[in-house]
Amino acid sequence: MKEIPGGVCAPKGFMAGGIRCGIKAASDKKDLALICSQKPCTAAAVFTTNLVQAACVLVTKEHIEGGTLQAIIANSGNANACTGGAGLAAARRMAELAAGKLAIDVRKVAVASTGVIGVPLPIDAIENGMDALADSLTDGQAGHAAALDAIMTTDTRRKEVSVEIEIGGVPVRIGGMAKGAGMIHPNMATMLCFLTTDAAIPRETLDMLLRRATRLSFNRLSIDGDTSTNDMVVIMANGASGIPPLADGSVELDVFARALDGVCVALTRAIARDGEGASRMVTVTVSGAADEEGAELLAKSIASSSLVKTACFGADANWGRILCAMGYSGARFDPARTGVRFKSDAGEIAVYADGTPIPFCEDEAKKILSRDEIEILVDVGNTGVNGAEATVWGCDLTYDYVKINGDYRS
Amino acid sequence: MKEIPGGVCAPKGFMAGGIRCGIKAASDKKDLALICSQKPCTAAAVFTTNLVQAACVLVTKEHIEGGTLQAIIANSGNANACTGGAGLAAARRMAELAAGKLAIDVRKVAVASTGVIGVPLPIDAIENGMDALADSLTDGQAGHAAALDAIMTTDTRRKEVSVEIEIGGVPVRIGGMAKGAGMIHPNMATMLCFLTTDAAIPRETLDMLLRRATRLSFNRLSIDGDTSTNDMVVIMANGASGIPPLADGSVELDVFARALDGVCVALTRAIARDGEGASRMVTVTVSGAADEEGAELLAKSIASSSLVKTACFGADANWGRILCAMGYSGARFDPARTGVRFKSDAGEIAVYADGTPIPFCEDEAKKILSRDEIEILVDVGNTGVNGAEATVWGCDLTYDYVKINGDYRS
Repeated sequence: MKEIPGGVCAPKGFMAGGIRCGIKAASDKKDLALICSQKPCTAAAVFTTNLVQAACVLVTKEHIEGGTLQAIIANSGNANACTGGAGLAAARRMAELAAGKLAIDVRKVAVASTGVIGVPLPIDAIENGMDALADSLTDGQAGHAAALDAIMTTDTRRKEVSVEIEIGGVPVRIGGMAKGAGMIHPNMATMLCFLTTDAAIPRETLDMLLRRATRLSFNRLSIDGDTSTNDMVVIMANGASGIPPLADGSVELDVFARALDGVCVALTRAIARDGEGASRMVTVTVSGAADEEGAELLAKSIASSSLVKTACFGADANWGRILCAMGYSGARFDPARTGVRFKSDAGEIAVYADGTPIPFCEDEAKKILSRDEIEILVDVGNTGVNGAEATVWGCDLTYDYVKINGDYRS
Repeated sequence: MKEIPGGVCAPKGFMAGGIRCGIKAASDKKDLALICSQKPCTAAAVFTTNLVQAACVLVTKEHIEGGTLQAIIANSGNANACTGGAGLAAARRMAELAAGKLAIDVRKVAVASTGVIGVPLPIDAIENGMDALADSLTDGQAGHAAALDAIMTTDTRRKEVSVEIEIGGVPVRIGGMAKGAGMIHPNMATMLCFLTTDAAIPRETLDMLLRRATRLSFNRLSIDGDTSTNDMVVIMANGASGIPPLADGSVELDVFARALDGVCVALTRAIARDGEGASRMVTVTVSGAADEEGAELLAKSIASSSLVKTACFGADANWGRILCAMGYSGARFDPARTGVRFKSDAGEIAVYADGTPIPFCEDEAKKILSRDEIEILVDVGNTGVNGAEATVWGCDLTYDYVKINGDYRS
């Protein structure tokens, strides 16, 4: 698997574009994106588990039932959530506008929105922008960059990745873009993520692959414990690479699955790195657990703890808060067999082992924890083949998080 | 029920005191407290549900099994948690020191600690302070104030309340003190709270009363979603009022129970008002739910949401985040029948009703939400006798929360 440029346009036969149609107040911000394939794709999607679901989620759920997509239209600046019947009509209209412009069936269009909740979606602005949006479509750098800009809200960086693998000597590509910086928490879908591939993959298989990749990546990400009404991850596979459809249980499918996992983990890390107001990314790995579920529960509890997150902000080796967060996670473990280490590119330090604090140099710990990317490594003592492991990604809790969210609407 | 002065010393036959023995670094901070009764009390306690439990929790759990207490010794500045066998020995020694000084059985002493996790408890400092601690005991204002000061950590205000009721024409008193500002979350015990009464109450009845009061108060409090390793609520009833033991199912017991609930709710509100770095207290009431559990789940999800909490800090009427937090709470409700209002002593404003945003004046909302105490009122549409309600207390999330917890250890 090698990284290549191109984002969602790296796979053959995909184009993207983005424009400003006027949903966002700022005159220099793009707010409407389109991604499409030259031919119909098998498709799969994962959605938020929030009971309150935005209109776009309802419409895309309907459309994905057909199993085929050819385009995704997305806007930022307005979530079109809690907007009642008018919001649902607006989401349907958004799909119709894209379908009309691309001359495809409306049921082949996914719709996504992100932004403020409860404000009517200015569908007229979208309608007026459709010509320009279609004109912006290209398979070059300008296309996927513009599409990505147009789905960003409080994001400070573009998050995209594309890779190439070989299957039977034929190059196959996977591309992805993601948007997300806050209101992100595991066990729900997560944020907006659009994935493309020129592999040929039957619908049920694609669905299984996407659920697996999401479980190992986006569902192990926690920024602030809140889960959006609008989260969705969509994948479209158009088969343009020319390889035969990937069969269940084949070595080729396994190669593809691992590449897709890698793309999703890379996007997950990019989101964690860009967590709202975050000054550092925090990776938590729990090993030696009785099972993977337990390891994940412990790691999520640590990564989600406000007290652990503020300690990370302060570069404070406060392992007591880590033990405490493990204690209320609901997972069983033996504190007396537990060890805690901190790690970064500045070094590694053990602070707790076998239920006992280890004397350590505070200056050394501070140096390690002051880096942009830090790791919390916890082992709960089940060594050997039976020990299960899980990694979760998060970030610290800073003054800026409070600032960004204290006046988001204004 | 009338409020009276005296705190835990308001009921007859109780004394309290507090001193500085040198556990805390600051030379002007008290750190060792003692509360005791002239005669043995029936007693009950509720403890943290954290799997990682401090040594004092383990020791007090053992002692409370006897059903009788006569004293509580507590320290701040050190949690004596994650301190292994030496920590357990130190907690036992603390109980022995108090028992020796008061000439009572060691099993009649409860032990509590609060402060930093993972640092050995300086038991010698406690031993050296015992004479001064005993000398500080009094049933006057100096006693309970000193005891309270000695259990405070990041608390900025003393939290105590005492009330008097009449039972059969005889005055009966309940007093309480609490410590807690962060690491507080419902469904676990909560923080340190010591309650006294001169009523005579059989042990099983007292246990039932304390669990009920805790469920309706401390377990509906959320500061930051973290739960301590050290939380406990202890009540001692010494019968010194002279009333006969309160019988299960009696009117008298009901009067007492409601007074105890009131004391616990008042202390809960005091803690919420003093949440770490909080600029305002947020009370969330969900009504019209199918059952009380559902109402509580919805209210807790709202009060615990980082995004709702930062919006409260910004005095932002961001009801979309409230709907969103309800959506991922796990409770069932119908968004289309839901209404949201904000209220404070500056007025009341409806912002959402029957699944639809209500146009409202932003300036008016800002004025209401800028007060020290604000209310979020949510109705989920089950009106009439079947509608269940629950109230949860919390606070906003501020720059100061991040500051306090970013360098707590240093």
